Amino acid sequence: MPAILQQRLKLELPIIQAPMAGVQGSALAIAVCNAGGLGSLPCAMLNPMQIRSELEIITGNCNRPFNVNFFCHQARAFDAAREKLWRDELGPFYREYDIDESIIAPAQGRKPFNEAALELLQEFKPAVVSFHFGLPAADLLDAVKATGAMTLCSATTLAEALWLEQHGIDAIIAQGVEAGGHRGMFLSEDLSEQVGIFALLPQIVNAINLPVIAAGGIADAAGVSAALSLGADAVQLGTAYLLCDEAETSAVHRAALQSPAAVHTALTNRFSGRPARSIVNRVMRELGPMGEVSPFPLAGAALAPLRAAAEANGSSDFSSLWAGQNTSGCRQIGAAEMTRQLASKLS
Amino acid sequence: MPAILQQRLKLELPIIQAPMAGVQGSALAIAVCNAGGLGSLPCAMLNPMQIRSELEIITGNCNRPFNVNFFCHQARAFDAAREKLWRDELGPFYREYDIDESIIAPAQGRKPFNEAALELLQEFKPAVVSFHFGLPAADLLDAVKATGAMTLCSATTLAEALWLEQHGIDAIIAQGVEAGGHRGMFLSEDLSEQVGIFALLPQIVNAINLPVIAAGGIADAAGVSAALSLGADAVQLGTAYLLCDEAETSAVHRAALQSPAAVHTALTNRFSGRPARSIVNRVMRELGPMGEVSPFPLAGAALAPLRAAAEANGSSDFSSLWAGQNTSGCRQIGAAEMTRQLASKLS
Repeated sequence: MPAILQQRLKLELPIIQAPMAGVQGSALAIAVCNAGGLGSLPCAMLNPMQIRSELEIITGNCNRPFNVNFFCHQARAFDAAREKLWRDELGPFYREYDIDESIIAPAQGRKPFNEAALELLQEFKPAVVSFHFGLPAADLLDAVKATGAMTLCSATTLAEALWLEQHGIDAIIAQGVEAGGHRGMFLSEDLSEQVGIFALLPQIVNAINLPVIAAGGIADAAGVSAALSLGADAVQLGTAYLLCDEAETSAVHRAALQSPAAVHTALTNRFSGRPARSIVNRVMRELGPMGEVSPFPLAGAALAPLRAAAEANGSSDFSSLWAGQNTSGCRQIGAAEMTRQLASKLS
Repeated sequence: MPAILQQRLKLELPIIQAPMAGVQGSALAIAVCNAGGLGSLPCAMLNPMQIRSELEIITGNCNRPFNVNFFCHQARAFDAAREKLWRDELGPFYREYDIDESIIAPAQGRKPFNEAALELLQEFKPAVVSFHFGLPAADLLDAVKATGAMTLCSATTLAEALWLEQHGIDAIIAQGVEAGGHRGMFLSEDLSEQVGIFALLPQIVNAINLPVIAAGGIADAAGVSAALSLGADAVQLGTAYLLCDEAETSAVHRAALQSPAAVHTALTNRFSGRPARSIVNRVMRELGPMGEVSPFPLAGAALAPLRAAAEANGSSDFSSLWAGQNTSGCRQIGAAEMTRQLASKLS
């Protein structure tokens, strides 16, 4: 089967570097693009000025197609009662670290994709725009497509893939439950509906008339090749790039990825308010990975001072340690070399 | 890479039909064996007389290698207080069906692998013996190996695979979280440690010096081929065989597998006391898939009259609907034909 994404985008390799907000910026994207893959810029935690700056760096250092990624969550209002519950649960940790709750900075919202972001797309015209947590409103999506961009969105269930096809997406990222970071789920909050990529991919490929990109649990050249043989048009990998030189992965996060603890990840809403896969650390273990925290993306604020205090001591006890279920492919090498290695078993 | 299992067992195909207690017996195993795969007889719910009878049927109808499977759970004592809690939770259903609790038959234990089973293995000398929920005691395992049988056991985590290698198993079944029926987990009860086959398989293959069999989420020829390319020596499939003519899958179970409901499975301990993957039905939805039920295998007794009453009305509301996360390969065909189709993309 011809790789549709590769043909349409004139990509050398059917490999997409997964956008990973908070742990990478333009440098990783550029390295992957210049190696023949599709690099991605995650914009979820950037304001328009920062996005512009990153886009200028990418277009100044790379004349290949690249992907710009946005979150499309429903922004929820701050809920003082829920925040209090969450802070009360953290109380023993605040006391342990001698943290005065009154100094906790208010949560910084992450804005979903909006008009300001659209204007940047209209100006920079990236070849690919990808969305997570569903799609923007129809008029916004139409305007994105009018820029000439190919649009992608994550689906975590067959129902989400069908919904995305009906709403005009160009290609679907099948996000297996193995994937690190935030689950892209948007039609249901029931974690039991999240399935492994080996089960999800064929179901979506059989039901959908669009290119399907496999994501989750793919860590090496054998995994890339196996995903393509299961019917994927391309693959998307994030975890494999986390130790790469160009990633901005923190020191405690890098240490966790290289430790035996990396074998045990769980879906947790403690760090942001939405379920995301992280290596299990102290806060997840002692409070449980899922709980009544402030809604996305506000939950992180209450953890921030604990995270800062712990990280200052080299501890990852309160840090989001995003990782997929398969960290066996992580290497401390350049992202270009990683991309070439991932493609080394393609025929 | 040469398929070690195939060579050692002189198997035509690297395909194992997963043992599925309660939904199949000798007929399915014989059909798969005669088609060149490795058929399996699940013994968990059979007494020694029944096992003997099934083994006589297999050896009378097939002169190829076959697999005999046993559970190795720690049998737990009946706990009257816990049983009362479980029955209280079912109370509204008993009243709805007008069921008198006093008629509920006491739970029938399922015996773990024992001396009586060993004697049958010594007599019938099957080529393969597989275990679920860990291994029998060392002397029993040694005695099984002394019969000449190749021994297999399920591992659901890297830690379990390492443990099995240390304890002398001949080959490991990597059971991805996608798999239907009972999780083989035996070193931990933490469901968050259960990972997708795409992540589990390479981790075990990299760490272990034994043949590794991939199980979970594999539904068709492309899946078989992809699992082998990820480093599996062979694959084990159960769900794909559930609609086959020779399976004893009940009418309500067959109907559920062919319905849109099949796309949503969950791990539940409601039917037996141990986590197992079933299509979500009424009892799982209304009580939640996991709960404080009687310990394995005793939980099923309290559900039995509800199951019988519902099934008499064609309802699967209280039935264990074992299925993996990928039912897309289920077909109402003979098991020999299914086996050949699953092998159709092997080079």
